[in-house]
Amino acid sequence: MTREAAKLDRPLANQIAVLRMAECDPSLVAVGPAGSVVPGMHSHCIATSGPPLRWDGYSGGQRSALQYAAVYEGLADSPLDAGKRIGRSELEIKPCSELGMVGSVSGVCTASMPVLVVEDAGSGFRSFCTLYEGPFTDRLNYGAYNENVQKRLNLLKDIIGPQLHIALRQRGSGIRLRPIIAQALRMGDELHSCNTAASVLFAQEIAPTIIEANSYAASRKTLEALTADNYFFLRLSMAASKLACDLGRDVAGSSVVTAMCFNCRQFGIQISGLPGKWFCGPHGDMTTELQHGYSAHDIDWIGGESTLTETSGLGAFAQAASPTLAKFHGGSYSRMLENNRKLYGITTTEHPVYRIPSLDGRGVPLGIDVQKVQETGITPTMHVGVPGRLGGQIGAGVLQADEAIFSSALRELDKIGAGQTSDPSCG
Amino acid sequence: MTREAAKLDRPLANQIAVLRMAECDPSLVAVGPAGSVVPGMHSHCIATSGPPLRWDGYSGGQRSALQYAAVYEGLADSPLDAGKRIGRSELEIKPCSELGMVGSVSGVCTASMPVLVVEDAGSGFRSFCTLYEGPFTDRLNYGAYNENVQKRLNLLKDIIGPQLHIALRQRGSGIRLRPIIAQALRMGDELHSCNTAASVLFAQEIAPTIIEANSYAASRKTLEALTADNYFFLRLSMAASKLACDLGRDVAGSSVVTAMCFNCRQFGIQISGLPGKWFCGPHGDMTTELQHGYSAHDIDWIGGESTLTETSGLGAFAQAASPTLAKFHGGSYSRMLENNRKLYGITTTEHPVYRIPSLDGRGVPLGIDVQKVQETGITPTMHVGVPGRLGGQIGAGVLQADEAIFSSALRELDKIGAGQTSDPSCG
Repeated sequence: MTREAAKLDRPLANQIAVLRMAECDPSLVAVGPAGSVVPGMHSHCIATSGPPLRWDGYSGGQRSALQYAAVYEGLADSPLDAGKRIGRSELEIKPCSELGMVGSVSGVCTASMPVLVVEDAGSGFRSFCTLYEGPFTDRLNYGAYNENVQKRLNLLKDIIGPQLHIALRQRGSGIRLRPIIAQALRMGDELHSCNTAASVLFAQEIAPTIIEANSYAASRKTLEALTADNYFFLRLSMAASKLACDLGRDVAGSSVVTAMCFNCRQFGIQISGLPGKWFCGPHGDMTTELQHGYSAHDIDWIGGESTLTETSGLGAFAQAASPTLAKFHGGSYSRMLENNRKLYGITTTEHPVYRIPSLDGRGVPLGIDVQKVQETGITPTMHVGVPGRLGGQIGAGVLQADEAIFSSALRELDKIGAGQTSDPSCG
Repeated sequence: MTREAAKLDRPLANQIAVLRMAECDPSLVAVGPAGSVVPGMHSHCIATSGPPLRWDGYSGGQRSALQYAAVYEGLADSPLDAGKRIGRSELEIKPCSELGMVGSVSGVCTASMPVLVVEDAGSGFRSFCTLYEGPFTDRLNYGAYNENVQKRLNLLKDIIGPQLHIALRQRGSGIRLRPIIAQALRMGDELHSCNTAASVLFAQEIAPTIIEANSYAASRKTLEALTADNYFFLRLSMAASKLACDLGRDVAGSSVVTAMCFNCRQFGIQISGLPGKWFCGPHGDMTTELQHGYSAHDIDWIGGESTLTETSGLGAFAQAASPTLAKFHGGSYSRMLENNRKLYGITTTEHPVYRIPSLDGRGVPLGIDVQKVQETGITPTMHVGVPGRLGGQIGAGVLQADEAIFSSALRELDKIGAGQTSDPSCG
């Protein structure tokens, strides 16, 4: 195929990719230990966020989180011991993306941890995500570990995860996430930094079966975990987004972005036409709202894949749905409306079901096209949580991706179109 | 007091009136039969919406609703018999407003019907409202009556009302509505035509106690009634609004509106400085979205006091919070933003707690001032449900009040300020 022919086919390839993404119909079908339900996960494996690095590439909070995860799982006696064992390849570190998982912040997950199993109705494809640890500053996914973190992880493993699974089994059918996400967008959520409505709607949907299937006291604990501070649904939004992105993968010639993720060193993207290949670069420009007492010096980059929500048209791509987040956008809702409108300039289509009421019901902008990013100079905006250097979450912010990463993906795609072979390493 | 002195004091009087309205801290404290909990209600009394009329003044659906209510209560054998008994004063018709009640559409209520009892924390004042009949076209409050309507009213009387009351008693404290309303405004509700978030949040708040206090099967019925189509909370929003409006009453010299209501013939308002006096006029201009198959000829005016939500800064006065209602505003959310901003031109203050996220957190416009209405020519906008001539709800719409009614209230207030006496009849 000539380069020109390839370019002519790109719009069609992109339409196919975004159609697949838009048709994704995800349901929560089970909750189970990662080691049992995630293909490729094993007892000595630790999953983590972002494009893969060698062990000596992991630093800061992401490195600590991996070490702590090994200790939590009983795979090492101490963080130091964990580091040695990983260095000796006794323990294997795998990127979440290779396991069909999506990682929150550091994204660490071990075999015993319960994960949400989300399945697409049409294809049967699955995605997996760990459970929200709860409304605490210190959480393992934010690189923090202590007795409370351990206790909370055990509660998820021993009570919340199993109870949810029993309720789902008793119900006999999964919980469809698409109607909840569509409704939540009408109720002020953008499904990344704001999941209030979705969490309440999800709890309302599953509550009767939880109560029916368990004792009153036990179900109360689970219901509390579902609505404690209304972030529970974020992991479901992430899993649903991961599934949509995966469905969009591997359409020859397509320049649609199917992954945007972080590790501690880089921001990386994948595009549909070059499945599995990462294009990496700097983390991007971040504006933050930090908790009182913290400054920019306290910020740590420890990875994160929740930006798959943006990749699938949610999060900052639906920011106009969520005026309560204006504080992260300079306090101005009209600026958010304008930002959101701008993002339609780099996407391929509008989602047929996920709509933004304040944009008069317009579908969210779906299918970031690296070619449009290059042509317009507009880069994806992302809503992110901000980890602190000493572990834990210290704020939230808005991130603007670096343009060069998108251009390099486009150049590579053009090379393939021109009959050249692609370089398998991180670009 | 001279007229000039009265005018000088008006801003202060208005500040006092709106401060009282803003400080209203309503809680749902009980649910009980109107005959037992509403002072002034008795076994042969039927409450109804709007400024009072003589029996021969009630026509159409409001007249039918009153007759059907008498039949439902066992006070008459047939609608015809009911009419005769009302005509002979065997049965008494009272306006809701004189009972501390707020009526939905026709607003009919008899002694055995359960009502929500909402109490202000500071003053101990109470307001009352019937329960939502559910997601059916035919409802007694919309002037329809048949076996299904009767069954549903019995379900409210025998199951839903008592269960809610038991749950509230077991809980030991009322359910504060202020935080729910404030949160719902951040989740796309304006608390008149859209109560989705508030209904879900309310259900979430009371669900644990309902489940604790009742059998699983019985509580499931009640929880279903609370969230069937997410309109349950409207009656609580109305009761909370009624309470705020009542707190604003009776500040000498104040030109702040403390009631806006309908009966089948008129739209009527009250102002703080002339408590109890109605100023009445035409219903106003209505734009409607009717269900398929209906036209303007099918519309009936059968009364309604849910517009107390607008009187207290909610409903159309918070329309910018609720972009999903754009279909009633010509499909344009930017027009809603503009309309909402305009309404600040006729109000006295902004609510300190009820805020609109898409107006960058600005408080809802509170305390309609008849003087500002006259000066600007801007009249209150209201979100309303539309009854059909054959009973039942056939759509919803946006109503623009008639300016002359506000001017006549102002003239009357000015007369009092000038030392003249007020005319007690409906102006």
